[in-house]
Amino acid sequence: MMGGMLIRNAVHDDWPHMWRFMQPIVKAGETFTWDPDISEEDARANWLHEPGTGRTLVAIDGDGAIVGTAEIHRNQAGPGSHVANAGFMVDPAHEGRGVGRALVNRVLEAARVDGYRAMQFNAVVETNTHAVALWQSIGFEIMATIPEAFLHPLKGYVGLHVMYRRLMGVRS
Amino acid sequence: MMGGMLIRNAVHDDWPHMWRFMQPIVKAGETFTWDPDISEEDARANWLHEPGTGRTLVAIDGDGAIVGTAEIHRNQAGPGSHVANAGFMVDPAHEGRGVGRALVNRVLEAARVDGYRAMQFNAVVETNTHAVALWQSIGFEIMATIPEAFLHPLKGYVGLHVMYRRLMGVRS
Repeated sequence: MMGGMLIRNAVHDDWPHMWRFMQPIVKAGETFTWDPDISEEDARANWLHEPGTGRTLVAIDGDGAIVGTAEIHRNQAGPGSHVANAGFMVDPAHEGRGVGRALVNRVLEAARVDGYRAMQFNAVVETNTHAVALWQSIGFEIMATIPEAFLHPLKGYVGLHVMYRRLMGVRS
Repeated sequence: MMGGMLIRNAVHDDWPHMWRFMQPIVKAGETFTWDPDISEEDARANWLHEPGTGRTLVAIDGDGAIVGTAEIHRNQAGPGSHVANAGFMVDPAHEGRGVGRALVNRVLEAARVDGYRAMQFNAVVETNTHAVALWQSIGFEIMATIPEAFLHPLKGYVGLHVMYRRLMGVRS
């Protein structure tokens, strides 16, 4: 899989192929602090950044299918704009094949190229243990866990991790 | 001062009287993660919430002048929307007279009324020690400090505190 996988910047025509697996992920309400019933238009505005405000990547498998996506944007504006934030979604039908790891590695690389000094995630659902372990294996640290900050549809109130990784002055 | 102070919901006509002291605070770039050169229109959109998306308060002194303002909005959407976030600005000409403390107490009360379970600040500049001490005295805890996440115009890269306070199940 990894050998045949391509990661490139998203183009507008990619959207329907991304939303196909993004919509069920958001609808499930287990991993994203988005309105589960968000409109396709709002989701698209959240995820596909205008040039200069962020960037969006897609992962494409050997058959040419979009199997994952990531987006990078500044975590804060003005004097906080040197710290990036990023989001990731992988098609559940293609999980466990290294798509997420390949995307996060490319995201770190792209964030460095774009001049960011660090990357921060504000709201990693603590029960999303697969993602937490992946970020940790790539050098992200849990800086804090905000108690009961996420209402999980099955598990009730669970914590949200704030995670962080320096980008400058360290090797990836 | 406290005896003569009124705190009420902001109305649209208040804006010019707020922006008068907000603009220099933002322009100084020492305490807010906003573009210091933000347009008045964008600042207004950030601060004055549409009904249902947040609320904005103003503090009015005995002479009828607006001397401070606060806004409350959800910190995250969807499954994270039960945690509030808030912002505060006090006219520097009226600092040290309890305006900030009165505003934060009213904000906690309003957030409870609006059904929020907790309040989180994502980006409290660590060199803004007066504000940090005020939040702490009112029960906010520093959950984490993101290193070098804020570029201060005089002090260089400084940390941003993530601060948090429960609202439900505790007395204010």
